[in-house]
Amino acid sequence: MRTQVAIIGGGPSGLLLGQLLHRAGIDNVVLERRSRDYVLSRIRAGVLETGLVELMHEAGVGERMEREGFVHDGTIIASGDDQVRIDFKALTGKHVLVYGQTEVTRDLYAARDAAGLETLHDCRGVKPHDLDTAAPFVTFLKDGKVHRLDCDFVAGCDGYHGPCRQEIPQEVRREYEKTYPFGWLGVLSETPPVADELIYANSPRGFALCSMRNAQLSRYYIQCDLSDQPDDWTDGMFWDELRRRIPAEAAERLATGPSIEKSIAPLRSFVCEPMRWGRLFLCGDAAHIVPPTGAKGLNTAASDVRYLHEALKRFYHDRDDEGLERYSETALARIWKTERFSWWFSSLMHRYPDQSEFDLRIQQAELAFLRDSPAAQRAMAENYVGLPY
Amino acid sequence: MRTQVAIIGGGPSGLLLGQLLHRAGIDNVVLERRSRDYVLSRIRAGVLETGLVELMHEAGVGERMEREGFVHDGTIIASGDDQVRIDFKALTGKHVLVYGQTEVTRDLYAARDAAGLETLHDCRGVKPHDLDTAAPFVTFLKDGKVHRLDCDFVAGCDGYHGPCRQEIPQEVRREYEKTYPFGWLGVLSETPPVADELIYANSPRGFALCSMRNAQLSRYYIQCDLSDQPDDWTDGMFWDELRRRIPAEAAERLATGPSIEKSIAPLRSFVCEPMRWGRLFLCGDAAHIVPPTGAKGLNTAASDVRYLHEALKRFYHDRDDEGLERYSETALARIWKTERFSWWFSSLMHRYPDQSEFDLRIQQAELAFLRDSPAAQRAMAENYVGLPY
Repeated sequence: MRTQVAIIGGGPSGLLLGQLLHRAGIDNVVLERRSRDYVLSRIRAGVLETGLVELMHEAGVGERMEREGFVHDGTIIASGDDQVRIDFKALTGKHVLVYGQTEVTRDLYAARDAAGLETLHDCRGVKPHDLDTAAPFVTFLKDGKVHRLDCDFVAGCDGYHGPCRQEIPQEVRREYEKTYPFGWLGVLSETPPVADELIYANSPRGFALCSMRNAQLSRYYIQCDLSDQPDDWTDGMFWDELRRRIPAEAAERLATGPSIEKSIAPLRSFVCEPMRWGRLFLCGDAAHIVPPTGAKGLNTAASDVRYLHEALKRFYHDRDDEGLERYSETALARIWKTERFSWWFSSLMHRYPDQSEFDLRIQQAELAFLRDSPAAQRAMAENYVGLPY
Repeated sequence: MRTQVAIIGGGPSGLLLGQLLHRAGIDNVVLERRSRDYVLSRIRAGVLETGLVELMHEAGVGERMEREGFVHDGTIIASGDDQVRIDFKALTGKHVLVYGQTEVTRDLYAARDAAGLETLHDCRGVKPHDLDTAAPFVTFLKDGKVHRLDCDFVAGCDGYHGPCRQEIPQEVRREYEKTYPFGWLGVLSETPPVADELIYANSPRGFALCSMRNAQLSRYYIQCDLSDQPDDWTDGMFWDELRRRIPAEAAERLATGPSIEKSIAPLRSFVCEPMRWGRLFLCGDAAHIVPPTGAKGLNTAASDVRYLHEALKRFYHDRDDEGLERYSETALARIWKTERFSWWFSSLMHRYPDQSEFDLRIQQAELAFLRDSPAAQRAMAENYVGLPY
């Protein structure tokens, strides 16, 4: 088998890259370790920056997203019962679109099928080779046989646990990491969302987030101990705790019901440098992780895809390799800013076990400054709707 | 002796309060532990917010300040050789005035003398009494005798080490504190400043600040170890280290000369709550300390003086005690925001011994965001020129 770009990983970043390359006339094959059903069963948040929405349109998969996605022109930041609405539209002229990551993936698969593009699922032992030559290739095991895919470039869209990042030799690879001393307990319930917009709440009992998938499907999160297990929390305990953490007027109108999904996720910041080695280019979680506060995970992946597909177009269309040469530096400059935002927003909204009384007052003062300063609100909104490219 | 307001402490906040009260027809006496010469020999920075400049005019002592002070419409923030100018004027319509704190104090003494107001120096063992009654008084030792000053109110402008804060009973007093793992080594030299505006520099070797008193008198600072002594640093060592920390083009034009003052100061954040107890009202360092990054020390004192003199005017002129009742809450709301700014700016500009590689990259990303985002610059400038009252 031969293709121009071997894309390792069939999640949203790999599929989006594949679709964009296809529309630019660049041949690609997607290799995915899991089954299609497995990929489509993963539940992830979905708050799409303007830049990702544009990219979906560029990839020709924006139609259902525009029809079914929810435009959010702002969000609520609460500090106890004190609330401020960050008005994205007034502050930046932009908005975000609430549209589940699963739906993004589904639309991309549908488009890939319609275009008749090659997507190989259940590929085990995927391994890139000869990345430091002009003729790299990828081997993998499928249906009991070893296959070889020759290519010009390898796009590592294979997530944090994927094999691609490990191909960057240890002596040139640097990894930066921060863990947070708490997790997020998330509940999905078939109830109408408590508000039209997301509510991020800093309360004396810890962080809470009121989010949604659609008008009848709500997603709520509360900060929990890292040692907690989902089964430690009955639905009743969860709703009681959520009610105590959000502003009173929201708590009063909160509609509760049985949880249809309940899980705990740790929070982590992670960056790998460089994001390119030879003919390998990393995208998304393969190179970086953000804590979920501010919903930047999918958006950072899209940021990489945008830079990479533009660089590949320059290479194939104009025989200009400067975009590829500069990919790591360019992508990382934006990634680090988004890492900073996700870290800052997490730091602002959570209670920390080792937080001193001084630190706590500083956090409250920062929330008060955000409430009172349009400039601070705008700096926040610029990040939330997506930094410029 | 009897007065309306007994002001304990003859530094700039006590003197400014006294002058403002005098002009409002409110009688006051200033008690100072040290001699006048001692007070006037203390060297402090002097970057005056718009609000303090206005207050100096309101106190009738703005003339020399306007004539000799230097209007700064912006400041330089450097990250290695990468620089951004924060344009206060364009971003906020305001500026700051560089005018030494010693000069402020001198002007206030001159005005106090001209008005024939009572200022008692060399007062030892100053102690307020009966603060929780309508008839408080202050006792002190001067010229070998115990004196008593009866008053309506006591203003505690006596600095961090003064006696007033200790009068707030332990059971109602809360103190918040943060120390920083480094100090500032400062040098004063009779050389022209390296730039017309202040340069705040974050370098791999640590923080540096290029400041000035006037066109022939420069003030420079470098971050140093807490265990360092001024004598550990020869002038040559200081200049060499400063040159390595500031942008290359600034280092090239740096004029050096013998230091005429050299000292090391620790950095600290401190807040005491409440700032009022009965008839006692704390102002300035007696209630709070900020690290020097951003030069907020004198300005936070002026913030308290502004709220307190307005509250006292309402009381004496309108028989309305709401301003006094709300003094602590109102003053603290602004103080905490300024504490946050001073902490944030310190955190952004210094290298920390325990900083992880991730933390360092986040710091650099924040500097890059500040460089690129007018909204972030404006949020910074709003704080630098002084938050609204």
